Amino acid sequence: MFVIITYDVSDKRVGKVCKKLREYLDWTQNSVFEGEISIGKLSKCMAELNKIIVKEEDSIYLYQINNPRNIKKTVYGKEKNPLDIFL
Amino acid sequence: MFVIITYDVSDKRVGKVCKKLREYLDWTQNSVFEGEISIGKLSKCMAELNKIIVKEEDSIYLYQINNPRNIKKTVYGKEKNPLDIFL
Repeated sequence: MFVIITYDVSDKRVGKVCKKLREYLDWTQNSVFEGEISIGKLSKCMAELNKIIVKEEDSIYLYQINNPRNIKKTVYGKEKNPLDIFL
Repeated sequence: MFVIITYDVSDKRVGKVCKKLREYLDWTQNSVFEGEISIGKLSKCMAELNKIIVKEEDSIYLYQINNPRNIKKTVYGKEKNPLDIFL
């Protein structure tokens, strides 16, 4: 399935959350990741993220689209290079 | 249709972009908006955003899902209140 994950977490944990998401998905921009992922891997990813975040302070939004054909993505302006995140 | 819009724009223009998106959609978290919108209104919104952003520096990602049934949203941790943005 295709997923979009956005996060809004404390500065203290943002590095860990970002690193974890990079293991499973592609970085899109700012605090947004997306990509194709199996249900098994997604469950693993979310379970791992749940251990990192502090539920009272942080939030992670997961959008799941079973068939990638049902979603259309358009970029306005500059398309960020996934490598930008490492700069 | 249901849309998710994420943006990564210069601090100089973030207020304008945010204000414009609030006219059409619901704020979700950080730089993410979502909601139900007609194609006509979406075109108007994107045309207006295109006038605000500097294409070489800013980026706006638009995800369109024609049938809201095709997308499932799950929140992990704290669900941000849409009013938080005004605090």
